[in-house]
Amino acid sequence: MTVVPDNSINSISESIPAPTREEIFAAHDGGKLATGLTAPLQDARDLAVAYTPGVAEVSRAIAADVTLAARYTWTNRLVAVVSDGTAVLGLGDIGPRAALPVMEGKSALFKSFAGLDSIPLVLDTTDVDEIVETLVRLRPSFGAVNLEDVAAPRCFELERRLVEALDCPVMHDDQHGTAIVVLAALRGAAAVQGRPLDGLRVVVSGAGAAGVACARILLAAGVRDVTVLDSRGVLVAGRAGLTGEKAALAQVTNPRGIGGGLAEAIAGADVFIGLSSSEVPEHLLATMAPEAVVFALSNPDPEVHPDVAARHAAIVATGRSDFPNQINNVLAFPGVFRGALDAGARRITEAMKLAAAEAVFTVASDELAADKIVPSPFDPRVAPAVSAAVAAAADGHSDAE
Amino acid sequence: MTVVPDNSINSISESIPAPTREEIFAAHDGGKLATGLTAPLQDARDLAVAYTPGVAEVSRAIAADVTLAARYTWTNRLVAVVSDGTAVLGLGDIGPRAALPVMEGKSALFKSFAGLDSIPLVLDTTDVDEIVETLVRLRPSFGAVNLEDVAAPRCFELERRLVEALDCPVMHDDQHGTAIVVLAALRGAAAVQGRPLDGLRVVVSGAGAAGVACARILLAAGVRDVTVLDSRGVLVAGRAGLTGEKAALAQVTNPRGIGGGLAEAIAGADVFIGLSSSEVPEHLLATMAPEAVVFALSNPDPEVHPDVAARHAAIVATGRSDFPNQINNVLAFPGVFRGALDAGARRITEAMKLAAAEAVFTVASDELAADKIVPSPFDPRVAPAVSAAVAAAADGHSDAE
Repeated sequence: MTVVPDNSINSISESIPAPTREEIFAAHDGGKLATGLTAPLQDARDLAVAYTPGVAEVSRAIAADVTLAARYTWTNRLVAVVSDGTAVLGLGDIGPRAALPVMEGKSALFKSFAGLDSIPLVLDTTDVDEIVETLVRLRPSFGAVNLEDVAAPRCFELERRLVEALDCPVMHDDQHGTAIVVLAALRGAAAVQGRPLDGLRVVVSGAGAAGVACARILLAAGVRDVTVLDSRGVLVAGRAGLTGEKAALAQVTNPRGIGGGLAEAIAGADVFIGLSSSEVPEHLLATMAPEAVVFALSNPDPEVHPDVAARHAAIVATGRSDFPNQINNVLAFPGVFRGALDAGARRITEAMKLAAAEAVFTVASDELAADKIVPSPFDPRVAPAVSAAVAAAADGHSDAE
Repeated sequence: MTVVPDNSINSISESIPAPTREEIFAAHDGGKLATGLTAPLQDARDLAVAYTPGVAEVSRAIAADVTLAARYTWTNRLVAVVSDGTAVLGLGDIGPRAALPVMEGKSALFKSFAGLDSIPLVLDTTDVDEIVETLVRLRPSFGAVNLEDVAAPRCFELERRLVEALDCPVMHDDQHGTAIVVLAALRGAAAVQGRPLDGLRVVVSGAGAAGVACARILLAAGVRDVTVLDSRGVLVAGRAGLTGEKAALAQVTNPRGIGGGLAEAIAGADVFIGLSSSEVPEHLLATMAPEAVVFALSNPDPEVHPDVAARHAAIVATGRSDFPNQINNVLAFPGVFRGALDAGARRITEAMKLAAAEAVFTVASDELAADKIVPSPFDPRVAPAVSAAVAAAADGHSDAE
């Protein structure tokens, strides 16, 4: 069994040199976000237009017709990145303050990739009722909610409750952003290999936020044999103690009804999708079917080092920016939110998510290869394509799920 | 009795042409704020530094020592501009959505005048408990709270409760920002006229947020004869139904124990400070002492038109940017918050407010004149002077009030 020590990742990179600790901290000094003005305030006249007395005209107009707030304030392009800091990257429950650099990064990505403004709101509570209540009270302040790094299973209830309580797009990116890009990547890998999705045997390791959403979107996209594992083994109908999302998932996955653990699930599998931070022993990877596909997506430390995975798989992907085939949510969430806001959608529906995955795949399809199953995160075609596809899928269906 | 119709203000301006309605709405289309990045994300290496995997190092460091959040996130220069929309400009209770353009303007001013980042948080609740609870939950998201346009008397309790509940600077600008600049302006006017503050007879019309705070800071600065009026007349100890802030104020103001209304209060007064939106009849202004000073500060419609006031007063000021002697909070709040944040202060104390007023006055003192009792809002010396004075006053006293 090969165990990849945590600290080996930074020292081995085939694409770009790993950033140094000094470089990282210097880049974070003072934070990564700033607010700015859409037009400068340079003289008394600017002040009279943008503040008193001029602003009173705009406030009066919105008071008479609140729908004008979407036009005359920044909210219609403003995404709140909301977290309680309970499941940050692979670091776990590190709290809201330690989560904030990640949320600032997320807000920076919204700006860079979709031109959306974004503010991180990190919460000093992990209570679902309190988080919902807080965002309901703040509702007039933003146009959409990107839920981030909230631990499972609480994240499922929290997202569901927020979708019910708020009349604006809400998406837990760790669930659906990941699921969208995994589906796009699997479409890419299957296309490289000339295999249809519905013939693949897929193992999803991890029944947290991302694992559950990935399993669901793969089923929605036509994959028929999906087996999901949590830390106690394969999800199978009737397993003792299964409740909630996992019990529901056991009903619609694992068609061959296998039990046991990773060894039983992975033997003969075509696709392994790691979303659990659990290391995958090399001897088990060796039992996969020929031309295997391995997505080792935990961040910052993949379930298996890509070099190790490549000994047993034809296509390998990770979540990291310093290896090829980066399965990065940034391919999805900027365009998803931009499309939803552009369309004035009140919900982000399943149809919008599938449309987003298809758009990401379509952008990649020109130059697909085993080491290029998804577009680069910096491919400028991605966000506009996703945004357009999501907005089109939202048309006329903005209240339907 | 001369009544100035509301619509006459925009047609008479001695300094700058009034902005048109078209110009105002065009300037608000899409909102006035935006978020930006302190460094661009242009390639995979930028992403590896600012997001995964690099950001994990910073999150780990903050998880080990939460005080590092002030250094490695934007919070230490981030002011939340918080409002429930219940007392917006002179427009009253127009709600959080209609308040938002004003809050965006306020955030824009923080950026323009003090280089502070700022986000508007408008709340769909007017309940003090709920507002406090919401901001306590959001506490890790910002570095200071500028409370704005919350109706009196609720604003007094809300500010007090927030100061107790949050370990960061909190200031209701309608109270203290106004009070600081009024004190600075009165220092300026008194200096132009060669009169000491302690000999002035001052009438404050309005016992709302601004009126109460102005009366208190004038007393703190040495003015001895302050008389305050609310809509029912002069505050005097023993008046039926007086409670809360007003009752407390009646104990320390009105040393001559006068009763009645504006006519009784203003007769022979040296200074009239209008903070109530109540029109002041010209025949009452005519009863003021010689060389009277009139501050007609309601926005957007002053209590008396400056041209009318000038018939009876030697020095006239308003809150508007399109007349001379603009008593504008922007002279105070950017530097106050900047100084408090720079100093790491947990409170904004009375000493810091008095220091801010003195700093504004000092900047103006070089070129004082009857039509220049305060610096221009665009005088670049003001915010740094206020910030430095506030930070110095905070030193060693950051937990004292």
